[in-house]
Amino acid sequence: MTSSSKSVSQGTITTPRGFLAGATHAGIKSPAADSLDLGILSTEVPCVAAGVFTTNRIKAAPVILCQRHLENDEAQAIVVNSGCANACIGEQGLADAEEVAAIAARKLGLLPQQVLVASTGVIGTALPMGLVRNGIEKVTPSREGGHDLARAITTTDTFLKETAVQVTLEHGESEIAIGGIAKGAGMIHPDLATLLCFLTTDAAVEPDFLKKALRKAVDVSFSMITIDGDTSPNDSVVILANGVAGNKIIESGGRGAQGFEKALEEVCLFLAKSIARDGEGATKLIEVTVDGALTAAQARNGARIVAGSSLVKAAVHGSDPNWGRIIAALGRSGVEMTESKIDLYLDGLCLMKGGCALPFDHEQAKSILDRAEVPIRICLNLGDGTATAWGCDLSEEYVTINSEYTT
Amino acid sequence: MTSSSKSVSQGTITTPRGFLAGATHAGIKSPAADSLDLGILSTEVPCVAAGVFTTNRIKAAPVILCQRHLENDEAQAIVVNSGCANACIGEQGLADAEEVAAIAARKLGLLPQQVLVASTGVIGTALPMGLVRNGIEKVTPSREGGHDLARAITTTDTFLKETAVQVTLEHGESEIAIGGIAKGAGMIHPDLATLLCFLTTDAAVEPDFLKKALRKAVDVSFSMITIDGDTSPNDSVVILANGVAGNKIIESGGRGAQGFEKALEEVCLFLAKSIARDGEGATKLIEVTVDGALTAAQARNGARIVAGSSLVKAAVHGSDPNWGRIIAALGRSGVEMTESKIDLYLDGLCLMKGGCALPFDHEQAKSILDRAEVPIRICLNLGDGTATAWGCDLSEEYVTINSEYTT
Repeated sequence: MTSSSKSVSQGTITTPRGFLAGATHAGIKSPAADSLDLGILSTEVPCVAAGVFTTNRIKAAPVILCQRHLENDEAQAIVVNSGCANACIGEQGLADAEEVAAIAARKLGLLPQQVLVASTGVIGTALPMGLVRNGIEKVTPSREGGHDLARAITTTDTFLKETAVQVTLEHGESEIAIGGIAKGAGMIHPDLATLLCFLTTDAAVEPDFLKKALRKAVDVSFSMITIDGDTSPNDSVVILANGVAGNKIIESGGRGAQGFEKALEEVCLFLAKSIARDGEGATKLIEVTVDGALTAAQARNGARIVAGSSLVKAAVHGSDPNWGRIIAALGRSGVEMTESKIDLYLDGLCLMKGGCALPFDHEQAKSILDRAEVPIRICLNLGDGTATAWGCDLSEEYVTINSEYTT
Repeated sequence: MTSSSKSVSQGTITTPRGFLAGATHAGIKSPAADSLDLGILSTEVPCVAAGVFTTNRIKAAPVILCQRHLENDEAQAIVVNSGCANACIGEQGLADAEEVAAIAARKLGLLPQQVLVASTGVIGTALPMGLVRNGIEKVTPSREGGHDLARAITTTDTFLKETAVQVTLEHGESEIAIGGIAKGAGMIHPDLATLLCFLTTDAAVEPDFLKKALRKAVDVSFSMITIDGDTSPNDSVVILANGVAGNKIIESGGRGAQGFEKALEEVCLFLAKSIARDGEGATKLIEVTVDGALTAAQARNGARIVAGSSLVKAAVHGSDPNWGRIIAALGRSGVEMTESKIDLYLDGLCLMKGGCALPFDHEQAKSILDRAEVPIRICLNLGDGTATAWGCDLSEEYVTINSEYTT
């Protein structure tokens, strides 16, 4: 018997056993009292932990601190704020991040190095530490607090990104759960394209296995979404595994490994697609599949470039079947291709066959482009490499949001 | 005495002696009778010719034909149409491009291989050859036709891009001229970022020198502009040198070489900046200079990434001094940097010094961002590499234009 996973209705980051979360209005993001902007995730047991962080050369202070605190693959809590990125403010940034970890550690009875920190918001302003200190004191993590934490990490998001799955591991030995929350909605581009994602699991896992499983799941999910081509100095995906499920420790290639990896990928994919769907100003999810590439890496690159093309995104927004833009974007991706072998499909509708435009029903094309999810498929017919990337349409609203962000 | 150059009032592609141009309404782009969409540039003398073409793996048929016709570094005429890109339509595309060259050659008394062709417009539709054949017959190239040709190559451009400079070569021996026209205004990204640019000169030049001079000029101009990150399968920059000025042939490192290179760069820079300024929906020109990089190549890369960032462009559009986006874009460029050494300026206003945000006068920042030209300067303080790139702001209008392009 192999493992089976099922998603949990209303699942969130506190669905896995032993995790507590909570959030408060500290006043960092907005004066509105219902605007949660500071939260804590914690568990009573030391966790195996792993993280994947921004590839941006400018790293926000919390990212630097997380990488340091994760050196021994352990952590037990995460403090996160929205409204301020704590980036580009010099040495003050790291000092503030350290103080945040220390305050939360004292509150939770932990060591500072057991606490991870994360921030999102405007770059170039210092954390308002008075508000942060008071806020941390006000948070009371609980088993019911997952949704509040999901709210507290949002900025321009229009809906919450949270999910959880339950997995019965091979041989029915144990049931474990994996939960997660994420935020969008701009400065999103591979890799890493998340801004913030926090994952929890009650499974007992071996640290190296967890690291590899996380990297693998991120590679096909958060690294395959794009909203606007920009990456953030704060991008972080972190997973805590508290082992409360009491399963036999999962190791690479060992019992339960595949089931765990599959479930983690499912959670990450759900969250990543939710981020793409909720891109700033977005009205549609664009799914771009490239197959028949010489390698999977080439397919990945091609799919991401097409999903990120401003011209493709604008055409999808207006349901304009101007498919030449898809091919032009593919062409600049650098992916190996032979023009006379390329086929292009909008869902089931073939627009180009063997590099040559086909006559097509414009009304049918428009009706596909009018959907909430627009599937684009490019067959290079050269090899076995395949990959899928997700993006969103580019609307006037994106510009409006981003031309008035700090003013 | 060194060479001196001066720009020519109302200068265009027919300012250099011996060049004739003309255009007509063939009905390819629009039924409106005042919409010129087919033009011819010619000269009565065989020319030394050079071209730089799209790096897109999908190449439009005219690009393939131009590359073939330029193998012997000679050409004597160019036929160009707007309204149809003649790309992605299989073998028909090349056959049509060849016929266009053949018809024009017959009209002008040339061989087909002396004629270059170029197209711009919608991808995936075949050239309406009936209209093209009639159109070519209707065109009467003349010394006064440069402006009409500039009009005929436009698509979503809001103003014509044309210029010319006159150069007195070293030692006052001869006076030569260089003229050019270009079109924007979308699918513009390094490199190559031009869609179409045609250049003429009456100077006598050696073919290898011309190739090198063109590449050098393109590198600091058309390769340094970005509008939307997309490149076109039709991008072409072509120069014809007819030698009518009767100067001693200019060779690499020889007399007049520097003066010619400088003037060619001046013409290309003018046209490239005009394209950026007239980006689809643009209201401002953004000029990004990166200096103090380890190498010039790194500076180029950093400047282009910042100028192309959707978030930076949207912030400039709204005059929102959200400068963290500039640093985030720089950070993802892959350019070597030490955060604590980076300075950032908006014109003369320092926003970040040594990697640390400075308090600044928001009204002053907004007034700089309100200008028609917004200068951003990043000092990496690591080496001598310096470069400047140009882009434009991202407006709601860009989205509107590009969501309704073919419908």
